[in-house]
Amino acid sequence: MAERDWIKRYLAPLVSAPGAAGLTDDTALMATPAGPVVITTDAMVEGVHFLPADPIASVAQKLVRVNVSDILSSGAEPCEALLTLGWPADRSEPELARFAAALATELAAWGATLIGGDTVVNPAGLFLSLTLTGTCLGPAPVRRGGASAGDDLWVTGEIGAARRGFLDRDAGQSSSFVARLQAPELPPKAAAGLVARLATAAMDVSDGLLGDALSLAEASGGGVEINLDQVPFAGGAAGQAEALDLATWGDDYQLLIAAAPTSRDRVVQEAEALGLPISRIGRIRAEAGLVLLDQGGRVNLPETVAFEHGRIGLSATRP
Amino acid sequence: MAERDWIKRYLAPLVSAPGAAGLTDDTALMATPAGPVVITTDAMVEGVHFLPADPIASVAQKLVRVNVSDILSSGAEPCEALLTLGWPADRSEPELARFAAALATELAAWGATLIGGDTVVNPAGLFLSLTLTGTCLGPAPVRRGGASAGDDLWVTGEIGAARRGFLDRDAGQSSSFVARLQAPELPPKAAAGLVARLATAAMDVSDGLLGDALSLAEASGGGVEINLDQVPFAGGAAGQAEALDLATWGDDYQLLIAAAPTSRDRVVQEAEALGLPISRIGRIRAEAGLVLLDQGGRVNLPETVAFEHGRIGLSATRP
Repeated sequence: MAERDWIKRYLAPLVSAPGAAGLTDDTALMATPAGPVVITTDAMVEGVHFLPADPIASVAQKLVRVNVSDILSSGAEPCEALLTLGWPADRSEPELARFAAALATELAAWGATLIGGDTVVNPAGLFLSLTLTGTCLGPAPVRRGGASAGDDLWVTGEIGAARRGFLDRDAGQSSSFVARLQAPELPPKAAAGLVARLATAAMDVSDGLLGDALSLAEASGGGVEINLDQVPFAGGAAGQAEALDLATWGDDYQLLIAAAPTSRDRVVQEAEALGLPISRIGRIRAEAGLVLLDQGGRVNLPETVAFEHGRIGLSATRP
Repeated sequence: MAERDWIKRYLAPLVSAPGAAGLTDDTALMATPAGPVVITTDAMVEGVHFLPADPIASVAQKLVRVNVSDILSSGAEPCEALLTLGWPADRSEPELARFAAALATELAAWGATLIGGDTVVNPAGLFLSLTLTGTCLGPAPVRRGGASAGDDLWVTGEIGAARRGFLDRDAGQSSSFVARLQAPELPPKAAAGLVARLATAAMDVSDGLLGDALSLAEASGGGVEINLDQVPFAGGAAGQAEALDLATWGDDYQLLIAAAPTSRDRVVQEAEALGLPISRIGRIRAEAGLVLLDQGGRVNLPETVAFEHGRIGLSATRP
């Protein structure tokens, strides 16, 4: 099928925003913003970020969610999306139809709408990229770099579900974790409001909790202390080694939020009102590096901990 | 090299917009718009839109220009860009450095700035996608659908340079056309002003002049008459068969502009003031379909004319 026909048949019907002009034009007119607008783009590659046999609906869900988590972490709500679809010739047309339907459903669930995109033939494997805008709920986006020493560090939801899903799939087991690997569970959209109102800094957890927490702390000019025993691990953690594994694998797409200790009660109250599980797992320090505690004792960071790019190895404080 | 390090080493230095936060954050804050903002995204795939051996600088130039032509055709000026880079493991790091440098130079030449993106490993070949915003110079973007019967149809620059480049390369010849295939020549940025002030409808020529002209006419609820002998072919056209070939191949990235006959003098004057070559090649008709004339006589549209997806075959008016 020709590229233009794909758009006409499968993507144009998803489009209702007047600025998108039914995807028939060269550009889309963006919505008039009520406040500051943030934008992000995240790509996914077959064989790297998902497997060829993964359900195509979950691929669409994951594509949207990995972008949504970035928007929420900025204290913004998803707004408009543009899709780049590199579709291989050996994927069937019914699969494309299912992908488009799942994408539309998922975007709508976040209050976002497709306004444009491009479809091309990709010789080898499926290549996806989504650009997503978000409307800031506050006067400016929440950044990684706004935390102060002494701020509490919070994380939403659970950490490690994707890692467990990866291990289950590797062992040939089906489990709810496999589904959460294929399409991560995100906090609700309303979490953006909590971030906008209470966070001094925030980011999503995509490259592993410990490394990401250190990134946030470094961007804020400090370091971080994390209590491993307070991290809400999916399925619990049977011992420190497993906890470290789950805390460093990534693909969680939960929110990491720094907030002043004076906001502590409000964080708990707002999260409760939203039905948002949230856990206080540590604090920002003035000194650089990561201090990891377990039941009050310092944890030796093993060389084998698989932080992305060995960043921890370069900058972690060791006892 | 790890993905995060690519961004840090090669893309972050290109970024100066304050909203981009040095590409260290999850989202970029978009510029506060002075007027309506349009957005577009176009992807390019190795082996489909460019060849593995094409100079990497021209790949970066083409990536920017295929998006810029969409923005200009909407009567808007390029503003902010997000890059999705699927880089294969077998491409060298110096090539990545050259790509980034060429991208920065090209964006700057259009007054645009990189504010975000994502880099991933692509197992097979280079996959590129750019999202580009544009600031409308008028109160609304110029669309394909605004032309009226009787409007003049204009085209900027030359048509067929990419086709000639393709044929030259196929024949093992190097020529200036090969360079124009690898990195299309665009009208100057100021052409956006002419579009905003005088066009009733506009689009860029990417899928072949005749098919694109018909698309514009159809979106405007009419048809189109084109005088083949008035089309400014790159290198001229030796006969009707060659003219038809050049007028249907695509990759021109020039602007197709409809304007009222009462604007005819102003179009010529403004184009002259901009140093913008522009040619009046036909007119919009009330009746659907394409009427092609050559030296005043009707041209039979041969079945073999390679319009994209056979669209002409479905909808052309034949004598």
